[in-house]
Amino acid sequence: MFDAKKETERIIEFIRNYYKENNLGGAVLGISGGKDSGVVVALFVKALGKENVVGITMPCHSIPDDKNLAQLVADKYGFELINVDLTDTFDTFKGEINKLGIFTEDETKNSDINLKPRLRMSTCYYIAALYSAVKGKPYIVAGTSNLCELYVGYFTKGGDSVHDIAPIANLTVDQVIQIGEVLEVPREVLYRVPSDGLSGQSDEDRLGVKYKEIASYIDDPDSVPKEVGERIARLHKNNQHKFFIPKYERDN
Amino acid sequence: MFDAKKETERIIEFIRNYYKENNLGGAVLGISGGKDSGVVVALFVKALGKENVVGITMPCHSIPDDKNLAQLVADKYGFELINVDLTDTFDTFKGEINKLGIFTEDETKNSDINLKPRLRMSTCYYIAALYSAVKGKPYIVAGTSNLCELYVGYFTKGGDSVHDIAPIANLTVDQVIQIGEVLEVPREVLYRVPSDGLSGQSDEDRLGVKYKEIASYIDDPDSVPKEVGERIARLHKNNQHKFFIPKYERDN
Repeated sequence: MFDAKKETERIIEFIRNYYKENNLGGAVLGISGGKDSGVVVALFVKALGKENVVGITMPCHSIPDDKNLAQLVADKYGFELINVDLTDTFDTFKGEINKLGIFTEDETKNSDINLKPRLRMSTCYYIAALYSAVKGKPYIVAGTSNLCELYVGYFTKGGDSVHDIAPIANLTVDQVIQIGEVLEVPREVLYRVPSDGLSGQSDEDRLGVKYKEIASYIDDPDSVPKEVGERIARLHKNNQHKFFIPKYERDN
Repeated sequence: MFDAKKETERIIEFIRNYYKENNLGGAVLGISGGKDSGVVVALFVKALGKENVVGITMPCHSIPDDKNLAQLVADKYGFELINVDLTDTFDTFKGEINKLGIFTEDETKNSDINLKPRLRMSTCYYIAALYSAVKGKPYIVAGTSNLCELYVGYFTKGGDSVHDIAPIANLTVDQVIQIGEVLEVPREVLYRVPSDGLSGQSDEDRLGVKYKEIASYIDDPDSVPKEVGERIARLHKNNQHKFFIPKYERDN
């Protein structure tokens, strides 16, 4: 059984200990308006105090909903929320690509989707380094990936997968929501349909499987219909390259 | 003993096998004008053929030297070299940070240094995805980190450390140069003083130790003077966080 209250306390303890052991100052993370960043920021505020947590909204041709929901979370927990609009940066970069004159606009669609999380990661680290300089103690970047996303490789290599501490990487979507209930994350955020906010589709549409099915499969592969299990296994296998970089080993 | 000729052949074999096993199309990498990217691109051209290799120069407030040396390498091996100037993208991003009005220009210096490799990584993946779409076979990003840099953590997390295949990650700087000799990498590139091109200092100035000393230390920690060994050990230890992300483990 999953004891959400006890796990919540243990995660907070885990964060606190890591900061103490490494003499760290604060945490920086992107606030998307979705449940994962909502739950993670609440955990960090409980662990470190609101004055040591910085949330960032990073719109990039985004819907205004994202920012409003992020503000709702910031108001609830009282941490500092800053806004770095990446729309112009994204467009400037795209302008350079257009100058090459060797790709059509249509061909850049998929590249565009993954560029955004990479710019966001770059922004989180930029801000973390700035706060480290100003506050005189290291600020690190908190990750918001959950176990279901990680299992099927639903993240951008060099984007959301790059961070310094992973508080919910071993929790399924359902468990993250239970933690969110304990922490009283606003319901609009906690129960928002998960979407990358990039492709215009929900995560589950893009994946072709439900998060509940992934959680169930991780627990017991035989608990889901055969085709569903095969699809999850295929996604898992095809995305292993995001975790392991093949290295040439010397002939000794 | 290090048999440079044999190791060169084995690396080329390693690359070829990985591409065959995974049904990959080509390789994309940043060409800095330094030895690591010069040697790696030569290895990929030998392994895959020049028509399957794309080099990118990515100036970002950079000296023109970099681009000229990159061109020298491209002329030598005949691969396609494209240029994506990141100066305007960098400046646009900085403009957004300035809008926050909470940091002085001086405080952003360190953040700026690490932003550049992150934008370059984002660019390599952007171009790799574009070539994958156009050519109908996956293009992956080749890494150029060597063992000495990796050992002391001399790289940017989320920047040059993000790639899909690592052909020289187990070779010291000296061994990389020997491979470069076998492949006849232009001497201006192979023997250029290593520098990040970002900070205005050479790598060895920034590190406070020589690459030769690091290689020697890896081989036998007692082979270098005591203070040098202590400095290398400290750099190694302090940078371990770039390799391992602490994850909360559930209470089972």
